[in-house]
Amino acid sequence: MKNKKLRLLKKLRRILPAEAVLGDEERLRPYECDALSAYRRLPMIAVLPDNVEQVRAVLQLCARERTPVVARGAGTGLSGGALPRTDGVLLVMAKFNRILAVDEHNRTATVQPGVTNLAISEAVAHLGLFYAPDPSSQLACTIGGNVAENSGGVHCLKYGLTVHNIMEVKAVTMDGAVLTLGGRALDAPGFDLAALITGSEGLLGVIVEVTVKLLPRPDTARVLLAAFDRVEKAGDGVAAVIGAGIIPAGLEMMDNPAIRATEEFTGAGYPVEAEAILLCEVDGMAEEVAAQMETVEEMLRQAGAVHIRAARDERERALFWSGRKGAFPAVGRISPDYYCIDGTIPRRELGRVLRRIKELSAEFNLRVANVFHAGDGNLHPLILYDANVPGELERTEQLAAAILGHCVEVGGTITGEHGVGVEKINQMCTQFNARELAQMHAVKSAFDPEGLLNPGKAVPTLARCAEFGAMHVHHGKVAFPELERF
Amino acid sequence: MKNKKLRLLKKLRRILPAEAVLGDEERLRPYECDALSAYRRLPMIAVLPDNVEQVRAVLQLCARERTPVVARGAGTGLSGGALPRTDGVLLVMAKFNRILAVDEHNRTATVQPGVTNLAISEAVAHLGLFYAPDPSSQLACTIGGNVAENSGGVHCLKYGLTVHNIMEVKAVTMDGAVLTLGGRALDAPGFDLAALITGSEGLLGVIVEVTVKLLPRPDTARVLLAAFDRVEKAGDGVAAVIGAGIIPAGLEMMDNPAIRATEEFTGAGYPVEAEAILLCEVDGMAEEVAAQMETVEEMLRQAGAVHIRAARDERERALFWSGRKGAFPAVGRISPDYYCIDGTIPRRELGRVLRRIKELSAEFNLRVANVFHAGDGNLHPLILYDANVPGELERTEQLAAAILGHCVEVGGTITGEHGVGVEKINQMCTQFNARELAQMHAVKSAFDPEGLLNPGKAVPTLARCAEFGAMHVHHGKVAFPELERF
Repeated sequence: MKNKKLRLLKKLRRILPAEAVLGDEERLRPYECDALSAYRRLPMIAVLPDNVEQVRAVLQLCARERTPVVARGAGTGLSGGALPRTDGVLLVMAKFNRILAVDEHNRTATVQPGVTNLAISEAVAHLGLFYAPDPSSQLACTIGGNVAENSGGVHCLKYGLTVHNIMEVKAVTMDGAVLTLGGRALDAPGFDLAALITGSEGLLGVIVEVTVKLLPRPDTARVLLAAFDRVEKAGDGVAAVIGAGIIPAGLEMMDNPAIRATEEFTGAGYPVEAEAILLCEVDGMAEEVAAQMETVEEMLRQAGAVHIRAARDERERALFWSGRKGAFPAVGRISPDYYCIDGTIPRRELGRVLRRIKELSAEFNLRVANVFHAGDGNLHPLILYDANVPGELERTEQLAAAILGHCVEVGGTITGEHGVGVEKINQMCTQFNARELAQMHAVKSAFDPEGLLNPGKAVPTLARCAEFGAMHVHHGKVAFPELERF
Repeated sequence: MKNKKLRLLKKLRRILPAEAVLGDEERLRPYECDALSAYRRLPMIAVLPDNVEQVRAVLQLCARERTPVVARGAGTGLSGGALPRTDGVLLVMAKFNRILAVDEHNRTATVQPGVTNLAISEAVAHLGLFYAPDPSSQLACTIGGNVAENSGGVHCLKYGLTVHNIMEVKAVTMDGAVLTLGGRALDAPGFDLAALITGSEGLLGVIVEVTVKLLPRPDTARVLLAAFDRVEKAGDGVAAVIGAGIIPAGLEMMDNPAIRATEEFTGAGYPVEAEAILLCEVDGMAEEVAAQMETVEEMLRQAGAVHIRAARDERERALFWSGRKGAFPAVGRISPDYYCIDGTIPRRELGRVLRRIKELSAEFNLRVANVFHAGDGNLHPLILYDANVPGELERTEQLAAAILGHCVEVGGTITGEHGVGVEKINQMCTQFNARELAQMHAVKSAFDPEGLLNPGKAVPTLARCAEFGAMHVHHGKVAFPELERF
């Protein structure tokens, strides 16, 4: 192991400048985890290339040396997708931070993967354009990671996920080939490999360039806050708004524990007595927005809102959103630790699932604060726990698994926008059957036959599922033994 | 061959009722081509299953017998994707024609692949909903084929292609496995195999069920007709409208030859002196539409429209569209034969590409009528020719290749919404390099290792590209000989 590391360091330093190859523990320490900090691993080596040729050379070397490679963007991922391998090389793409081109006419921007999500919108603001997906971490998270995880955000209800907002991706495969996936025009012929690599969590290739779609910035945006005395009524409100044919730019829900924590922390003006609040933002042309705001208000009243307030101006609009955006840190203040869950359910099931989460919370004797992208059924229950109380972390993980299991039961999925990574790899066994997982492994092999790119993430081996017990095993044999090596 | 056919017929009749297995020439004749009727082949056998178990059994049998299988929907495809194999079984999905479920609340419909595109919108009209993609053939074409070809239509500028409007696809692989791809919720974890199979032209699996997204029917739609004395000005008009931040529900362009042919045939009221016309439809809430119509009119005037007319009512709106919808048959009346091209270019290049098509038309001495989905840069030049004039078909194919080659040169693609099929398989060699094509073959192998599903379509072998001459060959060897069998 030690010898292998030394040999690799030597060879990597022939490819990269000395300062771009890290081998000492103290310099590797900052890279031991992403935003899922419960999982930490020191990489064997970290490299920071600054051009595509270097990425190709590193991958080709690691392929020859049969060394696993994990690509890392800004490290803001919440499912451990960038968790290093102790026997592998961490490929840090931070130096790929240039905006290469902006095409105002075709409304596209071509950027390197290390450009932050927000930087794209800032760079084209003077053209009246913006890049729609807006994960909460948009100040820090980078577009390469957004593509790898198919990130969403408050606005994805109206504007779609990352996959709906990119056109072309350049990626380097484990054998060092540079592939151009998708295209700059409406539709690319052949298989849609651009959509395939989006959300593939670094298992198929290393993203080195992305061409994103830009949208015209809406000239008006207004937000409305509605309070309810029962969470189910808020769920009905969501259904009513969508049912009225309105597609809000954002439709967020918070329950009482989240409201209280947030209000105390941010002073956003939320009604702390409410069992649930909805934040509904509508954007577009002024006339349209005015008309839609009326409809939204009417729908929410009918759903039983006890209190409705529209932001009077931009300042108040920012204030309303400051609460939602500060919800996670706020919850962090009322509990020593919290665990953020990311699941998705059919909108129809909102009320039912909220009730079930309440039951489970009591069952496991752990508080849960709910902050939802309600419009698209993306749940972010926050389980409050104390890691120093023996058994609480374990109980928290069990509760999280129970909640995600319920999401799947009602026809939802185990992740909305945070990805699978290492965090939810066992839940993949409940989401997909053996043949479907085998198909994913076959696709993985089509790009990376040796399974060296980000191994152990996103798609579980069938052997693991067998251990996890969520898969039927015949006579102690899994259906596709040839896949166990994955 | 003869014996193989008899043996296969015998085995198929054990799986399917006798009347669902066709072997006689006169009963096979109707299936010898799809809407690309220039290519015709009689299948060895055609089968018409009516349930998933039968599809699985047929595929498993054909896999054992190493017999190619081509799936067919309504046969409206324009690129020959459903062209049969003389040595293969044609899997006709016409009997899968039931709408299985409509979920008003989650805005989805679950349908069998043989349901026509229009039937979905008709079935949910009473709920105020519709299915957005609307290929011109929507009366006849079926959703299975729409998914296989990632079909578009007039409305895809605003509402996206098929891939943006489906959630879940059930498909049967060549080994008889039933896979559920995608999901009913916002985002499905793991690789996005639903997007991968969309547009895969029947090479990866046979689609047996589709869950589509439904959208609220806009309460107002208005259309405006603008005439120009130069096609370039019409191109500028398209740019101006999009540049103003408006996303029309449809933005269509026709040039003079198309206008004249259409007007004579449909009497839609088009100005026959105009060099080009634009049809721009805006939909949404009444206030929004009114405001946008004003902007559109202003933009088109600035672009140099010599004449602008808005449809006064629904009747006139239908009349305006009747011309566009009748354009192809209209052109069919002024020329013994015509060849419809489907290419896509960056919107910015519209004027330049139109000029180039005019030059090429003169060069090849063949008339070209242009009918475009201008808003998303999807071109449908119609080459007018007479198959009875020796050499004209060949010249037509050369002209078509030259036009598509130019689309790729300016950063576009060789297909917008009609797929590659057999028609454009050679152009794929210009669109993608050897390694990118090899990657597609590897993905194909991940689903169908023996290459039995719709072989010879969509993705060319590298050997073919070498012959076609568009690929660099080292010492008479193609880069990936193991792929030649595809």
